[in-house]
Amino acid sequence: MNDRDIQLDEQGRLRHLLTIEGLKRQVLTDILDYAENFASAGNQTVKKVPLLRSKTIANLFFEASTRTRTTFELAAKRLSADVLNVNIDTSSTVKGESLLDMLRNLEAMHCDMFVVRHNRSGAAHFIARHVAPHISVINGGDGSHAHPTQAMLDMFTIRRHKGDFTRLRIAIVGDILHSRVARSQIHALTTLGVPEVRVVGPHTLIPQEAAQLGVHVYHDMEAGLRDCDVVIMLRLQRERMSGALLPSEQEYFQCYGLTPAKLALAKPDAIVMHPGPINRGVEMASEVADGPQSVILEQVTNGIAVRMAVMAMTLGRHRGQDSEEAAS
Amino acid sequence: MNDRDIQLDEQGRLRHLLTIEGLKRQVLTDILDYAENFASAGNQTVKKVPLLRSKTIANLFFEASTRTRTTFELAAKRLSADVLNVNIDTSSTVKGESLLDMLRNLEAMHCDMFVVRHNRSGAAHFIARHVAPHISVINGGDGSHAHPTQAMLDMFTIRRHKGDFTRLRIAIVGDILHSRVARSQIHALTTLGVPEVRVVGPHTLIPQEAAQLGVHVYHDMEAGLRDCDVVIMLRLQRERMSGALLPSEQEYFQCYGLTPAKLALAKPDAIVMHPGPINRGVEMASEVADGPQSVILEQVTNGIAVRMAVMAMTLGRHRGQDSEEAAS
Amino acid sequence: MNDRDIQLDEQGRLRHLLTIEGLKRQVLTDILDYAENFASAGNQTVKKVPLLRSKTIANLFFEASTRTRTTFELAAKRLSADVLNVNIDTSSTVKGESLLDMLRNLEAMHCDMFVVRHNRSGAAHFIARHVAPHISVINGGDGSHAHPTQAMLDMFTIRRHKGDFTRLRIAIVGDILHSRVARSQIHALTTLGVPEVRVVGPHTLIPQEAAQLGVHVYHDMEAGLRDCDVVIMLRLQRERMSGALLPSEQEYFQCYGLTPAKLALAKPDAIVMHPGPINRGVEMASEVADGPQSVILEQVTNGIAVRMAVMAMTLGRHRGQDSEEAAS
Repeated sequence: MNDRDIQLDEQGRLRHLLTIEGLKRQVLTDILDYAENFASAGNQTVKKVPLLRSKTIANLFFEASTRTRTTFELAAKRLSADVLNVNIDTSSTVKGESLLDMLRNLEAMHCDMFVVRHNRSGAAHFIARHVAPHISVINGGDGSHAHPTQAMLDMFTIRRHKGDFTRLRIAIVGDILHSRVARSQIHALTTLGVPEVRVVGPHTLIPQEAAQLGVHVYHDMEAGLRDCDVVIMLRLQRERMSGALLPSEQEYFQCYGLTPAKLALAKPDAIVMHPGPINRGVEMASEVADGPQSVILEQVTNGIAVRMAVMAMTLGRHRGQDSEEAAS
Repeated sequence: MNDRDIQLDEQGRLRHLLTIEGLKRQVLTDILDYAENFASAGNQTVKKVPLLRSKTIANLFFEASTRTRTTFELAAKRLSADVLNVNIDTSSTVKGESLLDMLRNLEAMHCDMFVVRHNRSGAAHFIARHVAPHISVINGGDGSHAHPTQAMLDMFTIRRHKGDFTRLRIAIVGDILHSRVARSQIHALTTLGVPEVRVVGPHTLIPQEAAQLGVHVYHDMEAGLRDCDVVIMLRLQRERMSGALLPSEQEYFQCYGLTPAKLALAKPDAIVMHPGPINRGVEMASEVADGPQSVILEQVTNGIAVRMAVMAMTLGRHRGQDSEEAAS
Repeated sequence: MNDRDIQLDEQGRLRHLLTIEGLKRQVLTDILDYAENFASAGNQTVKKVPLLRSKTIANLFFEASTRTRTTFELAAKRLSADVLNVNIDTSSTVKGESLLDMLRNLEAMHCDMFVVRHNRSGAAHFIARHVAPHISVINGGDGSHAHPTQAMLDMFTIRRHKGDFTRLRIAIVGDILHSRVARSQIHALTTLGVPEVRVVGPHTLIPQEAAQLGVHVYHDMEAGLRDCDVVIMLRLQRERMSGALLPSEQEYFQCYGLTPAKLALAKPDAIVMHPGPINRGVEMASEVADGPQSVILEQVTNGIAVRMAVMAMTLGRHRGQDSEEAAS
């Protein structure tokens, strides 16, 4: 299966957003440019736009996530779409057959988009391969595979602060191995031309194929942060703690927690990012999270704009055509 | 109590939809005709219409049903109504008194319609008898009594495929005894002039009064399907399996499951229907469910249109009047 | 900390509604006057108004309450705002830090208003002290401290029936000690100029500082009701029963339940109020709850209008300004 094929329609326009991998730089830039329309700086007011009026967007969350679901729901409502929250007991859809029956039913109800979060890698792809031609699928996070809207909101935030991607040195710190966020970020940064992407973490949490992704591996945080323009901290899944992969939270913070002292090794104007929610005192000190270099809350705001852009682009592909048809 | 009286207002217009029983053919035809407005064939787009703007529709679901609730919610939203989902812990409303207090409160909040699903037969009637004069009640399924919107979407689907009801031979197969869907279908088919309605199932699952309803009873499926224009399969409630009423799923499928071989006994252009969700391999083989004669997903699509029609007709009764009042 | 300061903005306009205590009479009268716009008597139709289009209102309910949440949700929708229901597991926000992180995130998503219900007194104040400048906070009930929108809908109901506050004798009956409703009512009645406010209940349920609030204390219900214009019954929290504070429900009803006989001691045109839901046969007899002097369901209807008024006033403060900016 070729991801690029399934994500684009015959005219090369974005139909689904399942993964960053395989998307061309122009597509990513189009998303970032489009998102600028929905993110007017210095203004608290969000205008509601009628772009997706009469469209129905179904949130299919097989994995609980109030936070991510909320941002997709707000993005959809601000585009004037109707939102259907479908809470799915995974146990009742264990058999692929009943999942497909559910999809067919939602299609028959004239849903136009599925936002999918699932704890199994590949779930959003599976669904995208089986939906009707007019439906778009957005991956809201699948297993440890991909979280493309999170990566795109991170790119949007970086571009707003740093402008040009082609001169940046960026470090991603933490549990790279299990992080769908990191995987999507690496693909996005590489595609957008960032010359130096570093991953920083203990041996147990860096995947062996990291080097093949074109990133530089650091196990020493001080070395990893030195002269960076952007420091991206990952969220530590606390359930990993119970296994043998990690020492205690205190030891982890000692080695890989971001403190003012460690941050001082990066460039003076470096920005600090985190996908949230933060484990304060584990991934980073509160002084950093709330400090002047943190852009963590901007990421949240930008998340709405980027998700609005992706929804409007994918579902709005035929608008031009439709108008012509209507006119003719 | 006379059902016809409670469902119609003084001008003979539909005020509630609680049961098909007692409604005249013209009322059923009006619903089907009205639903045509909301079901434009060959078009994926559903236009949002402002017919119920400023109306509030409360879903009172005393029995869990994501599926049916979703179709009512979508129908309401596409009519521009506001929807209130009230999840009701049946235990807290055991006393009729507290149910009535809840109704009075929702009325006082200016709700305009209650969509009621309850596991006790007669619940929607009870509520309809106690609501304020401006409120409409739609029965979304009560015990084993009635499920009138399901029956009407089935009639809509049959009419779209077969045109004239007065020349049809229709078989309903499965657990007739416990099925509110079957009961409502039989009333609707009979009222609309279908000359031959058959019910097919084991002795234990056919009610004794079936003959009085004007239907023909078959215990042999081959005989029951022969030369039918429409085959309606019912969902088997698996909890019945535990009792003495039914053999194993395999045996049931052997006797009453719809296979391509059995379907071949019906007319070549017979359509296959099912209210969903299907137990594949129990009520029917997947080849039939997904085959060319299946109209099961059309039923789902038509369910939205028919529910929009019922909501708009019952709540929109006074529109003409209101306009006159406003004009005078 | 000065409550008046935090509730008003620099121009003296209402920004938050956290408590009645400290608000001037003119502010309360403004709310009542504004609510008249949304409560057209003798008309079942509620017009949907676009006053808060493009605004997002988040319901933060740390304490379960379908009823109150529903009225806030309906009020917001009828003002054309988008509503976000955030169900919060109190256990996950035990640390003040994670509550603040949640607030920061909702702010970053461009929420404009938080409606807060919490079982700890002071929770809404805490949140109001920490939100961004453009955000308004409405207290939907905090511990045994305050429930200001309930008090204002009660004032609205009293004014509709009695007109002038300055000639009234009003009794509040029941568990004054634990009632946030009673506390807010007393402040509102006193501020609006009611010359005689009585509290009626057993010694164990009247707070010792009652006299300092300017109210008259009665332990004998007959004496307390005599010649009153308004009788406000409080809901009895049944969990209090288990402690030593209260006798059995039957004994409570004997002493402090409102019966037709006791009500006859009040003025002939006295109205009976209750915040709902009623424990019939505990706080009052059904003959009274459903009788001609009861205005309990009017309170529910007025609750929507008053909440619409508070939401529109607090969030609409800058509208004039914005228009000017837009025009210049």
